[in-house]
Amino acid sequence: MSAFARLIRFLAKDGRTYYGDAILPPGILDIAQATQARVIRGDIFGKHDITDHIADVRLLLAPLSREDVKTVRCLGLNYEQHARESKMPLPEYPVLFHKPVTALAGPFDPIPVAAPAREAEGLDYECELVAIMGKEARDIPESEALAHVLGYAVGNDVSHREWQLKRGGGQWALGKGFDGWAPFGPGIVSSRLIKDPQSLKISTKVNGKTVQDSSTRDMIFGVAAMISFLSRGTTLLPGDIIFTGTPQGVGSGKSPPLWLKDGDIVEVSLEGIGSCTNKVEYTLSKPKL
Amino acid sequence: MSAFARLIRFLAKDGRTYYGDAILPPGILDIAQATQARVIRGDIFGKHDITDHIADVRLLLAPLSREDVKTVRCLGLNYEQHARESKMPLPEYPVLFHKPVTALAGPFDPIPVAAPAREAEGLDYECELVAIMGKEARDIPESEALAHVLGYAVGNDVSHREWQLKRGGGQWALGKGFDGWAPFGPGIVSSRLIKDPQSLKISTKVNGKTVQDSSTRDMIFGVAAMISFLSRGTTLLPGDIIFTGTPQGVGSGKSPPLWLKDGDIVEVSLEGIGSCTNKVEYTLSKPKL
Repeated sequence: MSAFARLIRFLAKDGRTYYGDAILPPGILDIAQATQARVIRGDIFGKHDITDHIADVRLLLAPLSREDVKTVRCLGLNYEQHARESKMPLPEYPVLFHKPVTALAGPFDPIPVAAPAREAEGLDYECELVAIMGKEARDIPESEALAHVLGYAVGNDVSHREWQLKRGGGQWALGKGFDGWAPFGPGIVSSRLIKDPQSLKISTKVNGKTVQDSSTRDMIFGVAAMISFLSRGTTLLPGDIIFTGTPQGVGSGKSPPLWLKDGDIVEVSLEGIGSCTNKVEYTLSKPKL
Repeated sequence: MSAFARLIRFLAKDGRTYYGDAILPPGILDIAQATQARVIRGDIFGKHDITDHIADVRLLLAPLSREDVKTVRCLGLNYEQHARESKMPLPEYPVLFHKPVTALAGPFDPIPVAAPAREAEGLDYECELVAIMGKEARDIPESEALAHVLGYAVGNDVSHREWQLKRGGGQWALGKGFDGWAPFGPGIVSSRLIKDPQSLKISTKVNGKTVQDSSTRDMIFGVAAMISFLSRGTTLLPGDIIFTGTPQGVGSGKSPPLWLKDGDIVEVSLEGIGSCTNKVEYTLSKPKL
C-alpha cells in the first residue's frame, strides 16, 4: 500500500529531481496545478517515507523514471465505440502491443515528430487511462487485480496510422513507439483514491477544441479484467505500465481525418487525475545523439 | 568496446551469481561448454574489469540480468524462405513486435507452458540470432550500426500460433510473451569476435532431430540495416535486445505441423556462439506467485 496520495516526479526550484507527494490547493484535483510537494524518500514500490521536506515544483516530469519502469503494455480497440469507429470487430480477447521505455515522456514534454513520421500523413492522439503496477505477481484473479495497481495516470498513446497500420506489416509497435510518444502523468494517483477506475470521464482537446469525450465505462475489458488476463502465465512487475486503450474520437475516425501537425497542442484529461498538455514538435531530421 | 570476449552470467559453485568472461577449452567455441570464467567487475555496458578471480560455473543463466535489460524487440518474417513458408509477402519494412523482460530466460531453463498456452495446439520454436545493444543512440547510420552492438547470442522466440495469429486480434505480442518464452545465451560473444553477423549457420533440433537449418545470410534486413531502421526517431539503449527473426523450418510451416509438447527438448544453435537447450514443461495451472 502506497503512503503517497498523488505521486509526482519533478524538477524542483533547487535544481534537483525528486519524487514527491503533490500538495494541491483545496478543492483542486488536477495534479498539474501542484506547485509544491512533500519529498518522498525510499522505494516507490516498497517502503517509502513522505518527509517533512517541502520542495517547490519547477516542472513535472514523467511520474516514473526510466529506471523504475519495466515493460510498457498497451491495449488496442478496448472501447466499444472506438472499435466501431475503427470499423473493427469487437475483440474477443484483449489486443496487446508494447511501447519501448524511451517512448515515455512527461506531462508537458513536446511530442517529437522525427523524420519517418513526417514521410506521410497520419499523426494521431489517443487519450488513455494508464495503470501502473505496484506488485510482482502472475495469474492474478480478477477480484484481486486492482489491489496490485500502484495508481493511475492519464496518457497519450501517440500513433502514426500509416506506420501503425500499413508500413508495419500489421504489427502496431513501430508506428506507436517513437521517442516521446507516450507522455503520461501529470502524476500517479494512488489506487486508494480511485475506487472505481471504470467510471471516469476521459477526454482530449486539440488546440482547445474537444475531440474525444467519453467515459472509462465504455471499456470492453475493464482494468481488473485486463490485469487478470495479461498476468496469465506472465509475471507482471512493479513498474510495468498499462495503457488501457482509447475511446472514440481519434483523428483517423473523423471525416475528413484530423491529423496532428507541427505546433498543435494536445491535452488529454482524466477525471480526478488531471491533464497532460503536449505540443507537437517537428524535430530536426538529425537529432542529437 | 567491451573488454570481455564471451560474456556469461552464471551461478558459481560458491553459490554466488557473477558476470564472467568464459574460459573455453582450446578449439571449442560453444560457450555452453565453459566450466570456468574470469569474474567481471563493473558496468557490462561501460567500464568493467576482467579480474583474476576464476570461478567454477555451476549453471549458466540468462546472460543479462533482468535489471540490465531494457526493451526486448523482435522482428517477424525476416528470413526470405521463412516468409515464403508462412505464405506472407516479403516485408517492405522490418516487422516489429516486443516481448516483456519476463520472457527472458537462461540457456538451460525449462520453457514453461502455462494454462492459456495449453488451451489449444500451436506451440512452436524459432531459432534466432540475438543482438544486444551496447550504446545509447538514435538515427544510427547503417555503416555505424554494428559498432553499437555489445555482442551476439542465440535465442528461441517461443511462439504459440493460435494466440499469436488468431486470438491476439492480429497483434503477436501476447502469443509470444509468456514467462520464459525467450531463452537466450549461452553467453554473449563480443561483436569484436563476430565480424560478419550475416554469414552464420543457424539451426534448431527438436528431440535431437534437425528441424531448422539455415544461414543468417537469408535475412531480409541484416543486423546493421535493422538497427539503423529501428533507431530512426527512436533511442536504442544499452541492454536493449533484438531477436532478429527466424529462418524456415518452424513447426507451423511443416505438413502436418510439428507442435511442441510436454517434455520435448529444443536446441537452438548459432555458429561461433553455441546452443541453448530448453525442455518444454507443462506447468501447474497455478504457478507460484
